[in-house]
Amino acid sequence: MQDWSKGAAIIRGEIVPIAEARIGVTDWGLTRSDITYDVVPVLDGAFFRLPDYLKRFAASRAALRLAIPEDDAAIRAALHAIVARAGLRDAYVAMVASRGTPAIPGARDPRACANHFYAWCVPYLRVIPAEVEARGARLWVSKSVHRIPEDSVNPRVKNYHWGDFTQALFEAYDHGADSAVLTDHAGNLSEGPGFNVFCIAGGRLITPRGHCLEGITRQTVLEAAAELGIPAEVRDLPLAEFIEADEVFTATTAGGPVPVVQVDGRVYGNGAPGPASEALRARYWEMTRRPALRDQVAYA
Amino acid sequence: MQDWSKGAAIIRGEIVPIAEARIGVTDWGLTRSDITYDVVPVLDGAFFRLPDYLKRFAASRAALRLAIPEDDAAIRAALHAIVARAGLRDAYVAMVASRGTPAIPGARDPRACANHFYAWCVPYLRVIPAEVEARGARLWVSKSVHRIPEDSVNPRVKNYHWGDFTQALFEAYDHGADSAVLTDHAGNLSEGPGFNVFCIAGGRLITPRGHCLEGITRQTVLEAAAELGIPAEVRDLPLAEFIEADEVFTATTAGGPVPVVQVDGRVYGNGAPGPASEALRARYWEMTRRPALRDQVAYA
Repeated sequence: MQDWSKGAAIIRGEIVPIAEARIGVTDWGLTRSDITYDVVPVLDGAFFRLPDYLKRFAASRAALRLAIPEDDAAIRAALHAIVARAGLRDAYVAMVASRGTPAIPGARDPRACANHFYAWCVPYLRVIPAEVEARGARLWVSKSVHRIPEDSVNPRVKNYHWGDFTQALFEAYDHGADSAVLTDHAGNLSEGPGFNVFCIAGGRLITPRGHCLEGITRQTVLEAAAELGIPAEVRDLPLAEFIEADEVFTATTAGGPVPVVQVDGRVYGNGAPGPASEALRARYWEMTRRPALRDQVAYA
Repeated sequence: MQDWSKGAAIIRGEIVPIAEARIGVTDWGLTRSDITYDVVPVLDGAFFRLPDYLKRFAASRAALRLAIPEDDAAIRAALHAIVARAGLRDAYVAMVASRGTPAIPGARDPRACANHFYAWCVPYLRVIPAEVEARGARLWVSKSVHRIPEDSVNPRVKNYHWGDFTQALFEAYDHGADSAVLTDHAGNLSEGPGFNVFCIAGGRLITPRGHCLEGITRQTVLEAAAELGIPAEVRDLPLAEFIEADEVFTATTAGGPVPVVQVDGRVYGNGAPGPASEALRARYWEMTRRPALRDQVAYA
């Protein structure tokens, strides 16, 4: 009896329990982080906005010149198969394209590699834990690192270059915060480890333009704002303006929108989630239940 | 009969052929590139400057707050064991420390992970192929990306954040060059994918100070320069000064010093390796044969 409860993966064409899914230590996806991925949620038995995630994953592969044998239909079938096999009603589902290894050992040319696809799913996870979400998160603005600039590594191509995030996370924990947010080299907000950031100021919703992922959850929040009549701006967001905002929240595939009650020493709304943030969060979860945006998993 | 000719690895405490050495797809060493490594050469049956590599590997782990069970003596023993098992007289030997995965699935805190060590060796490889070395390499200065700045990811801590290098490599190949070199955001030289860069100008040796690895091969080259009476400078090196230099060469553990005969449109020394570069290269290889710097492998 294999244990599927912790998740499943498809790798080298075979579906295996998550604990058995491994890649080679000389794969350039590891040794050069020459790899891209995307993560789509399964919520109550259905993928949410799967075509949007597949589209972004294809764009990421094209940007990195990664060519995998699978087309979108095959990727979609693989994602359905692993979620069904694991029997997960709520899941965090990763699709990955890696450079692989060169046919000639020792070759250094990425064009000489056989690129490959794999995917895995685990029970739904939250970048910010549920108990933190309930009271509102405390964020720390890193003082020691800036977000990797987009003319070094393109953040719109989802990537595993998390060195800046990891250092910022340690710094945040050292200061008693729940997570971190990074500024770019010009002092504007960028993003945190695994989430976009937003603020509400003067009744307007503002989220950073550059040096961050164009999150699909961010997009859903922007659509929710439009439905609620909240004007939204995607633009450079100076740190001082962010700190002085009325409300702050984060958004990610892995947990949706999460209210923030403190950034560094600044406390928002007397330490309680703000009304606009809460309205957007409620609308987001309502949107995840709309049939047009859902792709039902065919469980056995 | 297992095939050890392509290399060996030690992972999860077991020595296996290189093709069987794999890490989990959810290991943060992969999914966050939360990992550090070092690479030491074995040349004609002995490690070269192994204590220096072990020291840098320890410093890298400390910088990333990675704590592995193995001490330097255990790491050294593991490296000897895999090279002996593979029977390689000339080898590229990697030692790696990875964050691992959190004990609680879904946790996001790097402090909750069991960090782990592994190592692998393959036949000696060259960042720049031997046939390119023989005629002198052509480098391309990336126009599309700058080196990841050191206040985002510290380049002195050896890391797998190669997204900028990979993009620059594609750009170099598109322009018919053999490899790439990157500038920092201020327009100074940094390094290339897997090597430091040097130039000779007015009889002086110059190598960049910032946004690059403090290479042990670079250090050997600086020591070689001292022995040969060539004054050396480690400082900011503006691109224009580099392009206008008399000679250019690269240096890496994986191939030693390699002459460069062209950078972008500029040809050096009528397309032949320069005399100071060649003197330093010859001294480097002579130094690799000095018993005091060698650590003999005990082959079976």
